[in-house]
Amino acid sequence: MSNQILPVFPADAGCCAPMVREPLAEDDAAELARMFKALSDPVRLRLLSLIASHESGQACVCDLTGPFDVSQPTISHHLKVLREAGLVGSERRGTWVYYWVIPTALNRLSGLLQTPAQMSIPTGSGA
Amino acid sequence: MSNQILPVFPADAGCCAPMVREPLAEDDAAELARMFKALSDPVRLRLLSLIASHESGQACVCDLTGPFDVSQPTISHHLKVLREAGLVGSERRGTWVYYWVIPTALNRLSGLLQTPAQMSIPTGSGA
Repeated sequence: MSNQILPVFPADAGCCAPMVREPLAEDDAAELARMFKALSDPVRLRLLSLIASHESGQACVCDLTGPFDVSQPTISHHLKVLREAGLVGSERRGTWVYYWVIPTALNRLSGLLQTPAQMSIPTGSGA
Repeated sequence: MSNQILPVFPADAGCCAPMVREPLAEDDAAELARMFKALSDPVRLRLLSLIASHESGQACVCDLTGPFDVSQPTISHHLKVLREAGLVGSERRGTWVYYWVIPTALNRLSGLLQTPAQMSIPTGSGA
């Protein structure tokens, strides 16, 4: 055991232990599954990426409808799902609602999925 | 612009650009949404974490049924969903099937969701 290689994670792996380090508790799994469910739709993923990559760090809903072939109410529904999952925040300012990503939420999911650089796929040879 | 602060990502952020850097293409979003959908169920998330954190890097299906209050066929269905999403690999060896996580797939999702350390939530003051 003295030569055991320990996984190395970058310092900013997020707030939560990567799942390669320890199994998820039942309560955590339920909460995290809800967040991943919000990411399980292509339009929501693109909306989140548009908000996340917006120059100012926040996007007006008026910036978010153009790129999609879906109606404004559908976009609003998807934004509500992202907000209720805790992935984005929003605020009305005058005519428009503005959205921004919640970095701690994204980093929590990112950290959970992180695997150590030297982790490799086992090569099968009996067990 | 000379004092512009650029986001800093760790070197092993994964194979794909984080979504805070650029918006997702439509094709990528569809593929990634399918992978996130596989993570959107609490039992599947716990199964994946059990496999990922297993001491040997791989887990026999016989290690994966004990912790759950669901039937063996349900566990098998969830494992199939994880495999079809490209998140785990599997191989039959004698009586049992063994599972392991696909590190490149997990790191792809992890890298996508990563936000730079200095990213903060905008404070609202008109826009």
